[in-house]
Amino acid sequence: MRYSFFDIDPGSAHPEILAYLAANNLDHFIDPEEDKVAALGPARIKKVFGLPDADIHFMPNGTSSNVVGLSAMLKPFEGVICPATGHINNYEAGALEATGHKVIAVESINGKLTTRGIDDALQSHEDYLTVKPKVVYLTNVTEEGTVYSRSELEEIVAHAKKHGLYTFLDGARLAMALASKTAAITMPEFGQLGLDMFYIGGTKNGGLYGEALVINNDELKPDFEAYMKRQGADMGKQRPMSLQFARFFDEDNLWLKLAEHANLMAGKLRQGLKNSGAELVNGDANHAFVTISDSGIKKLQADYDIPIWQKIDPQTSKVRLVCSWATKNEDIDGFIGAFKSLN
Amino acid sequence: MRYSFFDIDPGSAHPEILAYLAANNLDHFIDPEEDKVAALGPARIKKVFGLPDADIHFMPNGTSSNVVGLSAMLKPFEGVICPATGHINNYEAGALEATGHKVIAVESINGKLTTRGIDDALQSHEDYLTVKPKVVYLTNVTEEGTVYSRSELEEIVAHAKKHGLYTFLDGARLAMALASKTAAITMPEFGQLGLDMFYIGGTKNGGLYGEALVINNDELKPDFEAYMKRQGADMGKQRPMSLQFARFFDEDNLWLKLAEHANLMAGKLRQGLKNSGAELVNGDANHAFVTISDSGIKKLQADYDIPIWQKIDPQTSKVRLVCSWATKNEDIDGFIGAFKSLN
Amino acid sequence: MRYSFFDIDPGSAHPEILAYLAANNLDHFIDPEEDKVAALGPARIKKVFGLPDADIHFMPNGTSSNVVGLSAMLKPFEGVICPATGHINNYEAGALEATGHKVIAVESINGKLTTRGIDDALQSHEDYLTVKPKVVYLTNVTEEGTVYSRSELEEIVAHAKKHGLYTFLDGARLAMALASKTAAITMPEFGQLGLDMFYIGGTKNGGLYGEALVINNDELKPDFEAYMKRQGADMGKQRPMSLQFARFFDEDNLWLKLAEHANLMAGKLRQGLKNSGAELVNGDANHAFVTISDSGIKKLQADYDIPIWQKIDPQTSKVRLVCSWATKNEDIDGFIGAFKSLN
Amino acid sequence: MRYSFFDIDPGSAHPEILAYLAANNLDHFIDPEEDKVAALGPARIKKVFGLPDADIHFMPNGTSSNVVGLSAMLKPFEGVICPATGHINNYEAGALEATGHKVIAVESINGKLTTRGIDDALQSHEDYLTVKPKVVYLTNVTEEGTVYSRSELEEIVAHAKKHGLYTFLDGARLAMALASKTAAITMPEFGQLGLDMFYIGGTKNGGLYGEALVINNDELKPDFEAYMKRQGADMGKQRPMSLQFARFFDEDNLWLKLAEHANLMAGKLRQGLKNSGAELVNGDANHAFVTISDSGIKKLQADYDIPIWQKIDPQTSKVRLVCSWATKNEDIDGFIGAFKSLN
Repeated sequence: MRYSFFDIDPGSAHPEILAYLAANNLDHFIDPEEDKVAALGPARIKKVFGLPDADIHFMPNGTSSNVVGLSAMLKPFEGVICPATGHINNYEAGALEATGHKVIAVESINGKLTTRGIDDALQSHEDYLTVKPKVVYLTNVTEEGTVYSRSELEEIVAHAKKHGLYTFLDGARLAMALASKTAAITMPEFGQLGLDMFYIGGTKNGGLYGEALVINNDELKPDFEAYMKRQGADMGKQRPMSLQFARFFDEDNLWLKLAEHANLMAGKLRQGLKNSGAELVNGDANHAFVTISDSGIKKLQADYDIPIWQKIDPQTSKVRLVCSWATKNEDIDGFIGAFKSLN
Repeated sequence: MRYSFFDIDPGSAHPEILAYLAANNLDHFIDPEEDKVAALGPARIKKVFGLPDADIHFMPNGTSSNVVGLSAMLKPFEGVICPATGHINNYEAGALEATGHKVIAVESINGKLTTRGIDDALQSHEDYLTVKPKVVYLTNVTEEGTVYSRSELEEIVAHAKKHGLYTFLDGARLAMALASKTAAITMPEFGQLGLDMFYIGGTKNGGLYGEALVINNDELKPDFEAYMKRQGADMGKQRPMSLQFARFFDEDNLWLKLAEHANLMAGKLRQGLKNSGAELVNGDANHAFVTISDSGIKKLQADYDIPIWQKIDPQTSKVRLVCSWATKNEDIDGFIGAFKSLN
Repeated sequence: MRYSFFDIDPGSAHPEILAYLAANNLDHFIDPEEDKVAALGPARIKKVFGLPDADIHFMPNGTSSNVVGLSAMLKPFEGVICPATGHINNYEAGALEATGHKVIAVESINGKLTTRGIDDALQSHEDYLTVKPKVVYLTNVTEEGTVYSRSELEEIVAHAKKHGLYTFLDGARLAMALASKTAAITMPEFGQLGLDMFYIGGTKNGGLYGEALVINNDELKPDFEAYMKRQGADMGKQRPMSLQFARFFDEDNLWLKLAEHANLMAGKLRQGLKNSGAELVNGDANHAFVTISDSGIKKLQADYDIPIWQKIDPQTSKVRLVCSWATKNEDIDGFIGAFKSLN
Repeated sequence: MRYSFFDIDPGSAHPEILAYLAANNLDHFIDPEEDKVAALGPARIKKVFGLPDADIHFMPNGTSSNVVGLSAMLKPFEGVICPATGHINNYEAGALEATGHKVIAVESINGKLTTRGIDDALQSHEDYLTVKPKVVYLTNVTEEGTVYSRSELEEIVAHAKKHGLYTFLDGARLAMALASKTAAITMPEFGQLGLDMFYIGGTKNGGLYGEALVINNDELKPDFEAYMKRQGADMGKQRPMSLQFARFFDEDNLWLKLAEHANLMAGKLRQGLKNSGAELVNGDANHAFVTISDSGIKKLQADYDIPIWQKIDPQTSKVRLVCSWATKNEDIDGFIGAFKSLN
């Protein structure tokens, strides 16, 4: 059976998550308002991020978090500024457009949005004939595997606020971003950045399913459940999602720990490939992007499920290798060995 | 802590479901195409319903199943025939309209769609000025707690086919419908009805989350993942949902068993209330609708979380009591006792 | 060539409208802000309705007026209360739903909305699961040919305001409503009713094309052009539409005069048919609804293009006969004669 | 009063158009199917373009032509390939996105789409996560004032067909394109290109309002009126629009003649400015794009309403000057004189 380097963490979920679900399972139905265990999820999120007044909503997945969150920030004639490589611009099957809103794609440098990109979007909006930019969307870890530094994030948020724009951070891999040395930001510091909305990814970091969307701006809190329901993103049972995040943010901060492991494995992979002569591109967190000859990729694919990211030239491609909480030292060693044997 | 009679089953999930998830958890990532355990979910669904050629898609919840399924059946100018009491017409925050489609509400008799309702919708469609009816939507168990008989279902499907309409069955509580004596239909017989699409509810019958959407019509199979993704209904991990349904439809048919228990409890509740002088309305499966004085309801609410369904007159309301796999004999006995003591 | 009783006024436009367009045509392009003639349209509308602070927008047609106006009043999860017979609920191909909003159909009595209908919609909205009613939509003249009295309009507006609802009046045939004795309301009095938005129909009353949308509520004024453009309802040239309304509301109030003629002709038609033994239904303005045997209709259709409104029984139908500024006395006499000769 | 160089032709309409409307006005209503004059519009369009089997629909304006036409060609998960400078990508307030579809912006060279741009879009579509390209959209005259040559058009259509893509040509200024020497294509030759849909602009070439949409592909003909109505683009009276095009395509081909005059005037303007030392950019038809110092623009704006197209550097801007059927020799002479006097 081939080992997979695709961008999803293994199998089902981290065993601790499953164990917590089982340990807190109910065989009778209680009034949700009296459910103290279910209340732990939001409470712990608010605590670790230092956001006592935030609203927390559990969403089924990343795309619904993006679409519901962003569309709730927009009037019909408004759009979202997004780096050209951003997830909503490329890999969500037009889900934002399906809500009637334009993704205003701007310059992306190593997967990152810049204030210049924001300015370009603002300058293109002369009058009502042009979609009005209203939200700045960014991902962290980015699609290119890079991580924003604290000052980059601060600059973008300040720039957005100055121009009356909301900010939304897609945190499908937020754990790996915060665990990255590039970020150099603590969780409470991240909470204090002043992002209007962000979501905390669970699925790609050992969760079974579900992401936690955080609303920090009072203007955006009312009626959010209506936006969720209308999009089909209101899960019948909120409890199991809450439990997962209660476990993630229990005293051991399992969430951050799992990401640290993922980043460690990816760092080892990047270093090992580099030492073996590979040309590396990007990778601040749990990714390793590496350029390999197509014949080499073909050989490796006998034992590894490797996603091709980009065709470089007729004989070469860039592949994207993703690590997770479940990646083992021997997986990395094995792959590096296989890579070496190509030459 | 008050016992709740709301329409969601208890706490998290049936213990067997959680156990199965844990037993089949992976700590490494394999190519999904090689994942034999994950393949069991769709395989067992096809087997128990006798639909070897069906396409199975796991959806996060009921609303997304309805919205993605229905919108994938429609051209922009087409709409869905729905009994006036139907779920999509009342309790999904306009999710179908959010995809640009009209819910064409027609007569509902005890929560059921009739062929006359279908005819009314067809006759209203004279030309392009009117939304064109294209899909017949029905729920089973209905919103009023009733269950369609086999012949009623056959008649509706035949009528729809005759008029070039697709059929979609919302099966949030399909288990309780098939477990009901009213239905008098086996699972393979249900599979052979010729419904173009239906979904098999898991969430309200002991599942943690996720429903299984079944497509029986070849015309409707292509590109379905694109519809899912575009709506934010494509879960990052399909595996855990597949596992739940693999367990549901293992040799013991846990799915049907849990529903039989829910129906049994509701039958006992209906009988007990009737014997105590209550005026009962409907209830073919796991519901008991009962009319109680508002002062009585107030007293009961000290110990029970009771949802009011409908105001009957200034002093009286109809309440909806829902039973599930987790309802215990003593819960029923307790409630009947409390009800008796009102007089 | 058959005479047509369909619901659109004849041929192109009233000759005075065409003459005014020709007389004020330009063969050079001037800055629209310096175009004093083009400014007359909005200025005269504001004057005749006594609404100096209103915003006036010229729209291509009735459906776009309804859709742009209503959708600009709504958040995504909100809907429009509409009498079941209302135009947006039946004859606009789901145009409002295409913007993502539900038409909340309620009781219609002789084509009119009632405060009870509004209350029904409000009571159905318990929580975020239900579409939130936000706008009250009514037409005048109604689809059934009836006209609201002044007190009926006042009652609806007051009721809407009391419940935080906006009001929108579809005035495709507003001229005929205001010219009707049933209305008993002057144009300035109509302007003072406090409707948040209404549109003044031109197309069905001698205009070539274009309707004038009036916004009375400051909350609803900003960004309206963006809503128009986004819907494809922003006509490249506003000037010709403005000219038409400048002519309509010139000192002779051509607009009201044409409607008075249409109503006069319809009154004569209703009386003539009544005297000839026809069973009449409704008709406060320029419509005559009359029930005729299907064999009679067939005979009449040799010389008249008659739209069938409703099947009454297997042998009989109700037809809708519409009069306009161009209907002549001899047209009416001819039809009454033909009707008499059926017996 | 300042002379305006904005991109709309003067005042109301060419006098011949108004005269034709008046001459063919009706003061009675006839069955549209018996209206031989109204039938002339579509008949003459089919004749001059050599497309006897085309469907012709009259649309209120350019944006609605684009939006209705394009959305009728697309499944929900499909999008439109458009050069980055294209009208639908920039100046329609997100109207296409409002129908749920993504504008897939690709390379634009001098305002033109290239086959490389099409290939880029196709290569980005790997699987269902990406919006599927389905239509190729192009404008002629382009936004940059350029005109496609016959071979460029043939190459794009052939490339699109090869890849299973529909083609849609936005012809707001099609008359000026066909009248341009760059095009080197006759009207019947244009008709035979094999475009699936295109629209013939009237508004910018002496029409009062209305564009004529032409459908050449049988797959796209059914139900088109429903798409129109649903978008609010179904004008109550089709007759006046038909009359305008009947006059345009009468034996004198007024439509082409007016465009020839517009192009002649723009050519004179470009030449005059060039002779006066201006730096010119593009301009194959009725546009002149010229770069002028901001101080110079300010002086010119005393007498001319000049739209700024693009900021070139802090002291200089590119302006877009548009000519039309109504531009006079003395307008051009006057402007060239004013430009000369800047130095």
